[in-house]
Amino acid sequence: MIIDLNQAVEFLKNNDDFLILTHSHPDGDTLGCGFALCEALKSCGKNAVVRCGDTAPEKYSYMGRLCEEDIEYDNIIAVDVADAKLLGKDFEARFGSRVKLCIDHHGSNRLYAEKTLLDPTAAAACEIILEVIKALGVEITKNIADCIFTGLSTDTGCFRYANVTPRTMHMAAEMIESGADHSKINIIMFETKTRTYVALERLALESMKMYLDGKCAFITITQDMYRRSGSDESEVDAIAAIPRQIEGVVVGVTMREKTDGTFKVSMRTHEGVDASEVCAMLGGGGHPRAAGCTVSGNVNTARNLVVSCIEKYLQEDVNN
Amino acid sequence: MIIDLNQAVEFLKNNDDFLILTHSHPDGDTLGCGFALCEALKSCGKNAVVRCGDTAPEKYSYMGRLCEEDIEYDNIIAVDVADAKLLGKDFEARFGSRVKLCIDHHGSNRLYAEKTLLDPTAAAACEIILEVIKALGVEITKNIADCIFTGLSTDTGCFRYANVTPRTMHMAAEMIESGADHSKINIIMFETKTRTYVALERLALESMKMYLDGKCAFITITQDMYRRSGSDESEVDAIAAIPRQIEGVVVGVTMREKTDGTFKVSMRTHEGVDASEVCAMLGGGGHPRAAGCTVSGNVNTARNLVVSCIEKYLQEDVNN
Repeated sequence: MIIDLNQAVEFLKNNDDFLILTHSHPDGDTLGCGFALCEALKSCGKNAVVRCGDTAPEKYSYMGRLCEEDIEYDNIIAVDVADAKLLGKDFEARFGSRVKLCIDHHGSNRLYAEKTLLDPTAAAACEIILEVIKALGVEITKNIADCIFTGLSTDTGCFRYANVTPRTMHMAAEMIESGADHSKINIIMFETKTRTYVALERLALESMKMYLDGKCAFITITQDMYRRSGSDESEVDAIAAIPRQIEGVVVGVTMREKTDGTFKVSMRTHEGVDASEVCAMLGGGGHPRAAGCTVSGNVNTARNLVVSCIEKYLQEDVNN
Repeated sequence: MIIDLNQAVEFLKNNDDFLILTHSHPDGDTLGCGFALCEALKSCGKNAVVRCGDTAPEKYSYMGRLCEEDIEYDNIIAVDVADAKLLGKDFEARFGSRVKLCIDHHGSNRLYAEKTLLDPTAAAACEIILEVIKALGVEITKNIADCIFTGLSTDTGCFRYANVTPRTMHMAAEMIESGADHSKINIIMFETKTRTYVALERLALESMKMYLDGKCAFITITQDMYRRSGSDESEVDAIAAIPRQIEGVVVGVTMREKTDGTFKVSMRTHEGVDASEVCAMLGGGGHPRAAGCTVSGNVNTARNLVVSCIEKYLQEDVNN
């Protein structure tokens, strides 16, 4: 059931103990949501913990620590989690069918929770969480401001992407006013690369191929590249932004080899190409400018399959 | 003479014909200031043109076109120009001593103009121009919004740097509300790399060496790399940001070989290392976080010279 802000706040006010769940492979937005909401609920005299099926990268530790004890509460809240599957295998099995409230900004939300507070116009789920926290009447502390700012900044590529709205910018201004350490956060998130990442980026650039008259740039990351660079899959996300940046490219693809032999595809597009529609042809999905899917085969057949779907989309787009 | 906002607006209201000058090698902020102010003055029934000693890069053309006719008006306004020298050689000689109003955000402004409206807390000079335009009572059109947004975005690395304040973010939100095409502008300014740039970046990453226990990352760009990548010196500036981004690095250096056999050094530092002091040891200078100098010798002796100066600075810093 889709609910509105007031109904979500009612639910939070009428209950006392909350288990907040982030999505697996947690990022700045889901963790920012979790820790900000947790602090807000605690300041209302409630019990709350934030848990995740995975461990959180160390760089996010300034926002808070995930609860590693096996604590369960009935009032399960999922933040920035569009699908119960995204809780991760274990957590999906344990909690997936029992989520009471989901707060999310993905238009593709599967509505798996009992109640869903959904705003697809929000650039980051943290925008919705900030509205919830304000409606709870909670003061925005420095830590809440750091958390919300992190979500706003990381889900917009530091306010660079098309999903940014005036609300995003006004909220970021408010968070800086409330003490968010914006410069430090942006250095950690956007101006810090590990040596292994730089080595992987170099191999990724070497692998880049151009297709479809330069409209598609394609990076392939193999398991061998992880070995040669000392890097791993956790560092690929930043690389996914690179191919779309090449002049003339409308579809940028980063395809990474998984240990099970399949390939995970991350697609980034410019206006005019709906990445979620292209990825849907291959059983995936996502947002209009950023989507993903999984393909099988060897490197070449997998790459050709993805390129042929992009070609088909571009041709149909011309014909319509 | 330093003046306040009201005095600047009085000057604009009391006169009819304005020659607006940007700094040479014009960037998004100085051009955004120029074109926004020009449109605002015209909508008040005034005559105004924007001129620059250099031509403007094509990517800024959506904001407007520089006047290429040799038009002169007595009321000369310099925007984002900290020093008459920065008008460029010709324009300094012609106009440098006759600037009636300078609107600027550089704390280092030389106060060369008759009247100066200065706000060093502004991340971009466009923040001050927007306040001037509002005080003139002019409506913020889409084009003015595009111009002001461009200045805000380009002078802050797309809202990433420490100079961003809540005012910057609120103004960016307002400009989006007034129709600024933020996503298109950010793509042009921050998400577009030429293929030759990408090829040069790859060679630059291959050249990167680490020194001083990983505190210094050093990229060397040779003339041969320009030949191999098809790129040229105009594309090196973006590369200069890379070495400082490596985890643990406090001094990032990019050294480029010039055609006369000397090397131009661009140094970027994190807090705690004053790049302008290190570069001063080699006859150069600049800002605390970004400075430069020129060194001679072959690649290895030039690199060793720069590294030894950084080592000396870091040691003295420890001893003090």
